[in-house]
Amino acid sequence: MMRRNLALSCLLLPGAFADLISRATNADGSTPLYKNANASIEDRVKDLLPRMTLKEKVAQLIQGDIDGWMNTTDPLDNTLTFNKTGLEEMVSLKAGSIWAGYEMPWEKYAFAIETGQRYLMENTTLGIPALFESEGLHGFTNNGTIFPSPIGLAASFNRDLVQNVSTVVSNEAEGFGISHIFAPVLDLSRELRWGRVEENFGEDPYLTGEIGLAFVRGLQDGTRRGVESGQGRKRIAATCKHFAAFGSPLGGLNLAPVAGGERDLRTMYLPPFEKACVESLSIMTAYSSYDGIPAIANKHMMIDIVREEWGYPYWVTTDAGSPDLLITLHGTCETRECAAKTTLENSLSGEMGGGTYTYLTLVDTVDQVGEGLVNESVIDQVVSTLLRVKFELGLFENPYPYDDYASTVRTSASRDVLHQIELESIVLLENRDNVLPLSTDIGSVALIGPQAGVVTFGDYVFFNASNNGISPLTGFEEYLSSISSATQVNYAEGCKRWSNDESGFDEAVRAAEASDAAIVMVGTWSLDQTLLWTPGTNATTGEHVDLADLALVGAQLKLVQAIKATGKPTIVVLVSGKPVAEPWIQANADAVIQQFYPGELGGLAIAEIIFGAENPSGKLSVSFPRDVGTTPAFYNYLKGGRPVDPGAVLDNGTLVFGHQYVLNSPVPLWGFGHGLSYTTFNYTDLTLSRSTIGTNDDLNVTVTVHNNGAVDGKEVVQVYITDTFSSVATPNQQLVGFNKVDVAAGSSQKVTIPISSSQLAVWSYNGWVVEPGSFNMKIGTSEETYINTTLTVQ
Amino acid sequence: MMRRNLALSCLLLPGAFADLISRATNADGSTPLYKNANASIEDRVKDLLPRMTLKEKVAQLIQGDIDGWMNTTDPLDNTLTFNKTGLEEMVSLKAGSIWAGYEMPWEKYAFAIETGQRYLMENTTLGIPALFESEGLHGFTNNGTIFPSPIGLAASFNRDLVQNVSTVVSNEAEGFGISHIFAPVLDLSRELRWGRVEENFGEDPYLTGEIGLAFVRGLQDGTRRGVESGQGRKRIAATCKHFAAFGSPLGGLNLAPVAGGERDLRTMYLPPFEKACVESLSIMTAYSSYDGIPAIANKHMMIDIVREEWGYPYWVTTDAGSPDLLITLHGTCETRECAAKTTLENSLSGEMGGGTYTYLTLVDTVDQVGEGLVNESVIDQVVSTLLRVKFELGLFENPYPYDDYASTVRTSASRDVLHQIELESIVLLENRDNVLPLSTDIGSVALIGPQAGVVTFGDYVFFNASNNGISPLTGFEEYLSSISSATQVNYAEGCKRWSNDESGFDEAVRAAEASDAAIVMVGTWSLDQTLLWTPGTNATTGEHVDLADLALVGAQLKLVQAIKATGKPTIVVLVSGKPVAEPWIQANADAVIQQFYPGELGGLAIAEIIFGAENPSGKLSVSFPRDVGTTPAFYNYLKGGRPVDPGAVLDNGTLVFGHQYVLNSPVPLWGFGHGLSYTTFNYTDLTLSRSTIGTNDDLNVTVTVHNNGAVDGKEVVQVYITDTFSSVATPNQQLVGFNKVDVAAGSSQKVTIPISSSQLAVWSYNGWVVEPGSFNMKIGTSEETYINTTLTVQ
Repeated sequence: MMRRNLALSCLLLPGAFADLISRATNADGSTPLYKNANASIEDRVKDLLPRMTLKEKVAQLIQGDIDGWMNTTDPLDNTLTFNKTGLEEMVSLKAGSIWAGYEMPWEKYAFAIETGQRYLMENTTLGIPALFESEGLHGFTNNGTIFPSPIGLAASFNRDLVQNVSTVVSNEAEGFGISHIFAPVLDLSRELRWGRVEENFGEDPYLTGEIGLAFVRGLQDGTRRGVESGQGRKRIAATCKHFAAFGSPLGGLNLAPVAGGERDLRTMYLPPFEKACVESLSIMTAYSSYDGIPAIANKHMMIDIVREEWGYPYWVTTDAGSPDLLITLHGTCETRECAAKTTLENSLSGEMGGGTYTYLTLVDTVDQVGEGLVNESVIDQVVSTLLRVKFELGLFENPYPYDDYASTVRTSASRDVLHQIELESIVLLENRDNVLPLSTDIGSVALIGPQAGVVTFGDYVFFNASNNGISPLTGFEEYLSSISSATQVNYAEGCKRWSNDESGFDEAVRAAEASDAAIVMVGTWSLDQTLLWTPGTNATTGEHVDLADLALVGAQLKLVQAIKATGKPTIVVLVSGKPVAEPWIQANADAVIQQFYPGELGGLAIAEIIFGAENPSGKLSVSFPRDVGTTPAFYNYLKGGRPVDPGAVLDNGTLVFGHQYVLNSPVPLWGFGHGLSYTTFNYTDLTLSRSTIGTNDDLNVTVTVHNNGAVDGKEVVQVYITDTFSSVATPNQQLVGFNKVDVAAGSSQKVTIPISSSQLAVWSYNGWVVEPGSFNMKIGTSEETYINTTLTVQ
Repeated sequence: MMRRNLALSCLLLPGAFADLISRATNADGSTPLYKNANASIEDRVKDLLPRMTLKEKVAQLIQGDIDGWMNTTDPLDNTLTFNKTGLEEMVSLKAGSIWAGYEMPWEKYAFAIETGQRYLMENTTLGIPALFESEGLHGFTNNGTIFPSPIGLAASFNRDLVQNVSTVVSNEAEGFGISHIFAPVLDLSRELRWGRVEENFGEDPYLTGEIGLAFVRGLQDGTRRGVESGQGRKRIAATCKHFAAFGSPLGGLNLAPVAGGERDLRTMYLPPFEKACVESLSIMTAYSSYDGIPAIANKHMMIDIVREEWGYPYWVTTDAGSPDLLITLHGTCETRECAAKTTLENSLSGEMGGGTYTYLTLVDTVDQVGEGLVNESVIDQVVSTLLRVKFELGLFENPYPYDDYASTVRTSASRDVLHQIELESIVLLENRDNVLPLSTDIGSVALIGPQAGVVTFGDYVFFNASNNGISPLTGFEEYLSSISSATQVNYAEGCKRWSNDESGFDEAVRAAEASDAAIVMVGTWSLDQTLLWTPGTNATTGEHVDLADLALVGAQLKLVQAIKATGKPTIVVLVSGKPVAEPWIQANADAVIQQFYPGELGGLAIAEIIFGAENPSGKLSVSFPRDVGTTPAFYNYLKGGRPVDPGAVLDNGTLVFGHQYVLNSPVPLWGFGHGLSYTTFNYTDLTLSRSTIGTNDDLNVTVTVHNNGAVDGKEVVQVYITDTFSSVATPNQQLVGFNKVDVAAGSSQKVTIPISSSQLAVWSYNGWVVEPGSFNMKIGTSEETYINTTLTVQ
């Protein structure tokens, strides 16, 4: 194959041969242990590390970039040439991992990675392959399949399905030689103004940990081709990010400091990481500070906890340009030398690009190691974590792209996974008088609103990714056509998402009046990774796009009100990357559906849900507040955190005075875990395997779920606990288990959910402890609707 | 005097005589040391404590209430009788401090306290006087003079004046036998939704500490009458509250948990207490939890820091009913026994009433001490702190009301202090084209708005206290009359504060149109301590009145807009207990004045300011956000806490997109320290006593302030520092000094402000440390307007 046959040996300088022979072979001329695929990983690390020069080690720590040898500026360019000098220079300084998160024709992409990797393998002394890295939060970002945004993936409450999703991400990335994906995000959506809420798996640490673990396993499980079992144990390295507490920035402002103490850290922010990261081959640090200490300078967080308590042996990397922020943002270093030393020594992490490459100061003109300012043993320790990952991946055995890379992208099986997750991530919030599903014979529906005619993806997708998506309008037409329905779709945009212009209302109202029901699609919008950072564009969610108001922007609410005023059944679909706070819609729409930013088949899925081809089964991964002023809305606040004596501003302007709040309520519109179905479920026969246990005992919760309706449906059985009394304040309630089950109409199913002893533990004065006492165990369909029983711990 | 001559000896039971003699006298029949006014306080404590029974000790720990022997239900009742059995019973269990925060005729009030105190002194074995306690946040709450709310006192930035204010509070309370005042509040107003923002001295720890210390000194300094110098060192015990971090509850909801770490605690929440409390004779704990630990159960906060680090020897009390909240709110105790033991042992505090008196379990039927569950030595330790306070007050020497109690209430001198603080707490926020001051010969002014015709006091005032106040309408008329001005006042209410009814707009617009200028007075409102808790009342600020929105309520903004639309010069006066977030007013009013809830002369003072009889000199003690969704607004956020790339919704509906925030800005409307004058000041000749200092060196900052205008004026010279680089993230800037100076028109004044070494310290990894490096020293008229220089620490 052409790319493989490139004669890269011409790049090797003659003078380096002696060195190559002396360090890359044993004294007796035999192949060194680190090249033995059947040796243990630790032995291989121990063999390789002493062979490396300091400069080679530091080069492992610094992220390189394929733009060093490829022209990456034009995503359509397919020229299969590279810059030889650029490649040499790049990998001489930055060779451990290589950023390849570009959009380019697949042929060129494989060529770029092949070229770089082959040079490293064949033309450097030790032949250490690089991790080639890209994004994959909800789809491989060089024209791979785009799935729903993570907040929507989590709304499926379906571990297996999410694992199938990330398996597809790996399937699509692996063939190109990508070995490291910067996903999943395990931050919590507890500050809803923050632009990146859509990238998270919601507000809850347990759900985030469970979905995160499924995502990690989907990315990692299996081995790379050409790697025999036992040689490589994972096929792509996942990245749990952003470590830690990044999701609660002051004021919701991107990168801003996070306030919190050790208990908040241990009980809310860390559990998802502890759950999902022990299996993950890498962790990415947060940009932010926590109680005044930048994450990358936080020895307690990064060494005491990650390395020592958790025993984490793998690669930790900073986020892009993060060490420089010690100088420019946090003000904790005056020099690049300080930034490098501080980051390295306190976080034991490598340095991602995007900044000034402060780690060059370790060996550069300043030469901190040479001057004794940084101990080489720390560098050894970090290099070892990266080598360990490469051995785990079997990367020394087969680091290259596969010839048939195209055969694993956008397969029919992948599309089935996509279709299923699209359906399961949709959440039915309200359904007054069972207005939904609509009959496919209804005659006509108006499809209205600025979200109806467009594909609305979340952030972390490639430039123009939406071209691969189906808009709701297209989805409705295709679906109705596919079942040969005569129902007509009357479309009207109504208004733009970014404007108060109401000139399109008349057309929209006419469309509604001419139809038997109206579907109004409104919400937020994000942009792809190119446009998001392009001056002059607009968005309401996404990285560095932070809101001060969670209501609909522009004329969108008024459009909904105008359609509702026609008297037609009005179904509101919120397409958004975060909760939209619109109490009027909750109170007045005939039905409300939440579609978090979907993937490519979102437009089809929403049609199928609305017409009842599929019974909705998604649940909210995040609570929906009534207003930004009533946040935080998360359900698992500490006891005493939500006194309620609400007031209100009525539609007619009448003010009803309360105290918490004076003219509003801290109770969300819809809480975590909420989601309706077209059937009704009820629960009976709640039993605990043991109603009294010891402090080290696990238990099972069993309940029978009945589908009392006329249609089959999936139900997410949720288990919440409240520790009645504890040595320190504990959450009002917290999710400790869930299981999504398929229950046929009229039938029942027994569901058993295991609860481990550790899930009952309190972070008390001296660490985790399960305290004797009673726990209220609530099992049901949301945090608000459940049956309950008491567990006693002795 | 009648009350003194009451023969209370009849209450003494004969059987107790032997006990009285044996414990209250020495073996040789001599008077015990603790009764010797000239003995040292520690010797007196050591002498008294061993004489006390366990039950007597516990009775010292529990707050009693004069309602045990007095009818307190009717504030107008003046019957001078008491319930003998009730008195005996009360003080047998609850005798250390007695709640007397009632409103009643002064004669009855003095009788009530005299009766209780004389019984304790003459008819109990040891004759230990009680602290009699009342409220005094901004005025003694049994019909004493009401001053501006604390947020306004702080806006004066005038330490001496605030000390004069609290001296008046003591003057008015002392004569009635009150020896303990529950003020000042040192919480920080960093969560503006919280109802109690008005009770604080603003958002800044330094300002709060300085004003708090002045308040403490005003309350405490001096000795009680009849107490010779050297016997009693203070005359009334102040109470620093609520310890600690109470002002930042989750969601702004009263009593809700506070999130934060050790650095936030040390650098923001504790400094005002450490500053003001070392001199204060008591501290009150917070209701809330901090990082999951209720304040009253927080050994680290209450013992490690308060007792050990600070060496605090005096009385700590819980807030009302606080121990019970361990059971009912925090869920950290299941029983009253646990609540009592936990509180006592971890906070070394006494128990205030208002709950179930959990401390009775120490000696009650359960008898935790008797059963060895609680060690009597802990009780001894806490009792000692209270005895120490009583000896400090000379209370054993003269604990009684004074015959001439009325002579120190509402004196002419007090009224002068009131008048001055009213003037100095008013803040001029905007003054376009110097529309203010209005000429007294202007002809006519419209006085419009729901705040114009009423007296608007903050919380913590007695029932109907506002009857003693002057409304703005009255103030305008009285002022103009006093200077024989012919200017006419055209008053119109316009709208109610609590309604969207616009039916009064026409009259208001006509009043504006008929006048030469319009003053529109709008804002928030609170209620007195009776009405605040009365069902069916309404308020927008005050204890347990929490807002989800910081904009004006009801039709008030529209009223302002309607008046502005008349084209008349429109001066908006915001009368409020917290920042009102109304960017339209900032952008459009001809002038804006902030009058935090005033005292009794607020209506006069606002007239005097508007007509230029006094030059405004107040400065904002708290930043004014643009919207609740852009909070927190405080100026001293950690570095990196406020990226700014603002968007906007223009008045014509056009949306201008930004990122921080998408359609708004995190930059406040007006920042901390802002306040205009009718003259203009500029600063020159900034010098540091030493521009390079060692880590233990103090320094002086000197600057010359010039009054360039035509009128005299007071200027608050403010010193801010930024620690350029530090080991951990430090505030973007922080106030470290201020001085209010009077500068005559056209003249200059040299101002020197001392900065202590400790003010440069960082709470680093191992505690406070002054780190070598550079500091940017900014000296000016607000956090935004200054000249600066560099200080180097070596």
